[in-house]
Amino acid sequence: MRVESTPMNGAESLVRTLVANEVTVCFTNPGTSEMHFVAALDKVEGMRSVLGLFEGVVSGAADGYYRMADKPASTLLHLGPGLGNGLANLHNARKARSGIVNIVGDHATYHRRCNAPLTSDIEGVAATVSDWVRTSPDSASIAQDGAAAITAARTAPGQIATLILPADTAWGAAGAVAHAAAPPPRRNVSDEVVEASAHALKRGARCALLLGGIGVREKALELAGRIAAKTDCQLLSEYNHARIQRGAGRVETTRIPYSVDAAVALLDGVDELILVGAVEPVAFFAYPGKPSLLSSERCKITQLAAPEEDIVSALEALAERLGAGHLAPTHVAQRPAVALQSGPTTAQGIAAVLAALLPEHAIVVDESVSTGRGFNAPTAGAQPHDWLNIVGGAIGFGLPTAVGAAIACPDRKVIALEGDGSAMYTLQALWTMARESLSVVVLIFANRSYQILRGELSGVGAGTPGRKANDMLTIDRPDLDWVGLARGMGVEASRAQDLDALAGQFRRALACEGPYLLEVVL
Amino acid sequence: MRVESTPMNGAESLVRTLVANEVTVCFTNPGTSEMHFVAALDKVEGMRSVLGLFEGVVSGAADGYYRMADKPASTLLHLGPGLGNGLANLHNARKARSGIVNIVGDHATYHRRCNAPLTSDIEGVAATVSDWVRTSPDSASIAQDGAAAITAARTAPGQIATLILPADTAWGAAGAVAHAAAPPPRRNVSDEVVEASAHALKRGARCALLLGGIGVREKALELAGRIAAKTDCQLLSEYNHARIQRGAGRVETTRIPYSVDAAVALLDGVDELILVGAVEPVAFFAYPGKPSLLSSERCKITQLAAPEEDIVSALEALAERLGAGHLAPTHVAQRPAVALQSGPTTAQGIAAVLAALLPEHAIVVDESVSTGRGFNAPTAGAQPHDWLNIVGGAIGFGLPTAVGAAIACPDRKVIALEGDGSAMYTLQALWTMARESLSVVVLIFANRSYQILRGELSGVGAGTPGRKANDMLTIDRPDLDWVGLARGMGVEASRAQDLDALAGQFRRALACEGPYLLEVVL
Repeated sequence: MRVESTPMNGAESLVRTLVANEVTVCFTNPGTSEMHFVAALDKVEGMRSVLGLFEGVVSGAADGYYRMADKPASTLLHLGPGLGNGLANLHNARKARSGIVNIVGDHATYHRRCNAPLTSDIEGVAATVSDWVRTSPDSASIAQDGAAAITAARTAPGQIATLILPADTAWGAAGAVAHAAAPPPRRNVSDEVVEASAHALKRGARCALLLGGIGVREKALELAGRIAAKTDCQLLSEYNHARIQRGAGRVETTRIPYSVDAAVALLDGVDELILVGAVEPVAFFAYPGKPSLLSSERCKITQLAAPEEDIVSALEALAERLGAGHLAPTHVAQRPAVALQSGPTTAQGIAAVLAALLPEHAIVVDESVSTGRGFNAPTAGAQPHDWLNIVGGAIGFGLPTAVGAAIACPDRKVIALEGDGSAMYTLQALWTMARESLSVVVLIFANRSYQILRGELSGVGAGTPGRKANDMLTIDRPDLDWVGLARGMGVEASRAQDLDALAGQFRRALACEGPYLLEVVL
Repeated sequence: MRVESTPMNGAESLVRTLVANEVTVCFTNPGTSEMHFVAALDKVEGMRSVLGLFEGVVSGAADGYYRMADKPASTLLHLGPGLGNGLANLHNARKARSGIVNIVGDHATYHRRCNAPLTSDIEGVAATVSDWVRTSPDSASIAQDGAAAITAARTAPGQIATLILPADTAWGAAGAVAHAAAPPPRRNVSDEVVEASAHALKRGARCALLLGGIGVREKALELAGRIAAKTDCQLLSEYNHARIQRGAGRVETTRIPYSVDAAVALLDGVDELILVGAVEPVAFFAYPGKPSLLSSERCKITQLAAPEEDIVSALEALAERLGAGHLAPTHVAQRPAVALQSGPTTAQGIAAVLAALLPEHAIVVDESVSTGRGFNAPTAGAQPHDWLNIVGGAIGFGLPTAVGAAIACPDRKVIALEGDGSAMYTLQALWTMARESLSVVVLIFANRSYQILRGELSGVGAGTPGRKANDMLTIDRPDLDWVGLARGMGVEASRAQDLDALAGQFRRALACEGPYLLEVVL
């Protein structure tokens, strides 16, 4: 008997390589040049493919997935413009040190010289947001190139690996499925570095650990709390975190404020700053007459562990060196009795609703850049949860990242905190939430303006906006109807005008299986 | 008496330079680094500033504006991610040879070394879609740099000029308002080139003029019609046009089809192809076993005028040389008696509605990539109108381009033909239409799938989609409710399920002053 076998093409060898190396989710918005990859999805078991109706949804979802799964997903994007549409959230992912196997289809190798309408410099765009870029030369190489991309994406602290896949390398005859080499392990810090940090900590309360990267996960925070118990040092954390583990029973940090003045005032109390997975604190923006570097001139900065180093073992070594390894940590957040308020939807009142009602193990995706600026302290004692910030500052991050987090953690509730302005950038993510029945509650804080820019306009010394300038800062006339927008994409929705309504609707939203959007009118 | 004067800052000098050089519209989505530019809008008369809630709206609007105004608008984008969000429509604009003064704010020069969250390689991204890129070094130079950008944007056939504006160059003390040098005029073609084309045209009906660029404006088409009257040559035009002037009384062309097989069959009848503002025809995508170049091997290609040359005077010289200058043109489209059909919303029936009801001087923005593929022939005899295609193939073009066209031509009706899939990429444009009360009728062809990709999947030999592949090609489950989405952004809307409803609602929509969206269920 003769068995006819269809030979495997390059696209199929790539999908099989991804699955064989535990890259089992593909966020995609494909086009013609990616059709063989899409066809291969039918043939290969084990790949979950999730469609986004805009590429910013795709790249943001891959970011959210990595933050929660601690392993990369792949994307599948269509040519240079598809990559361009995904660029802002790839920027955010890179700043958050998320690993992504970012696959971009291209024209067939021989077609590129024709300057067809969609021909563009894909490598040039990719280079600006990637740690690793490769264009696969032929269909026999694509599996090996895919494996190399997986290794790169997994390399600590997480990297954007962009693999460009010309159409003929997808449809040509494949080589074998490839095994991705293990990434190099996180580097251990030296005894000298631990000793230098221990020495610096002798200054006690004028000393601070500044925690970032995976230094704000539960275990690292607990170690920091023990060190603080021994040395009385302050526990600071960066302004934005890819993923901080917070809530009652966990060690709490003081977040460096966004405001330059407030950040400078806080850091003025620090003479020895020890970086633990964090980088030297800088201002988010420059303002005339204000510093770019936030720590004081007399402050000495010591690095215990860089973001890509083994942060937990560095903290363990430091705690051990200080004799703090078995102390009870300080700065442990307590669950307070939260009194829900009534009345207008103030930021403080909203924070109280969150603090009271966040379910245990919730994942909070926070893009409430103005309304939520003060949410940190009042929610510190909520049920234990993960909180994901927009690390790269490119708005349009929240809804897509919530998609990826929900797919990484199907048993947990995702709460997306969104400004109306930032939500508009990638509102297409709502449709993906509906299609995939994701357990996401979206709170839209509808102040009907780019509220943050009102402060910024004054902050940069540009005065008080007149009519024309004000029109560029407001998103009213017409007001957005977020309930209508959500329903238009198949997401249940309602509107809350006061805190009682917010609390009631938030409770109901949390009880839903699928997505729910709640427009909070401010 | 002493007069206190506020010295002008760099941002104000730039806005004044733009207005002084007739760049009087700014499409924007600004952020902190652009606040001085926004503040200057209040101080300077003559700049219309239009807010988009996503940067793809901004760059697409600038493209549409140029196509209809024949002069550049400016954009104002926020840092690298803002540029990234605008990239796909800048790609489309560049392929359409639209001139844009593309202004991108950056961090203050001294802040860039801090690697703040929003720091990125702006020049690197800009280089991939720009003909001209400059980062202004200081506030005294910004007016001159702006003037240079204006000259570059105006240089035939239209260029993307990206000016990067660090925040401190915006807030520092300015130099004088600058005068933009006139761009170099379009180059005249030589007598030898005209003679070569005249010689080629002796082949008569086996010869074709292939018209593109501004070669498909009314005057050029009329000259082509005279030449055809004399030589019996075919009149072809490219598959996509930045702006073609069509309709009853105008010279009609045969559009090269999208399908490679159909294009090859058409061009097989051509032995002498004369390029008039067009480039050699190539396949939109590569397909296994099909050619990238569409003309036959025996076809001789002669260039009469490159896109940046003086196309009209080249055609005049050619007509003169042939003794065709005073002949009546052939291929003049006639206005047929169009019979409106009843029944289901077929592509043919929709085309008949457009042919019958398009108002005189309508501007059609066409991103109906699958439903509208056959609209060309049946609408050739509609009232005279302009038709704008998606030249660069990056979907998300139509709604933003309609915004820009409507702002360029406030007295004309804009009709946007949109697939539901492509409309989703930049649906935020609907809000700008509402805010600016733009006279735009949007027809959404709701087939609830990436219909074009079904054909492409088969075209590239990837077989028949199974369940998982099919899920990546459909945008159903849930269906999008376009009426709800439009109303959610303040745009009147309705839904048509058959051709009678479509004709009735389209008539009503055309009578509205502001925008109207009509969801055509297929």
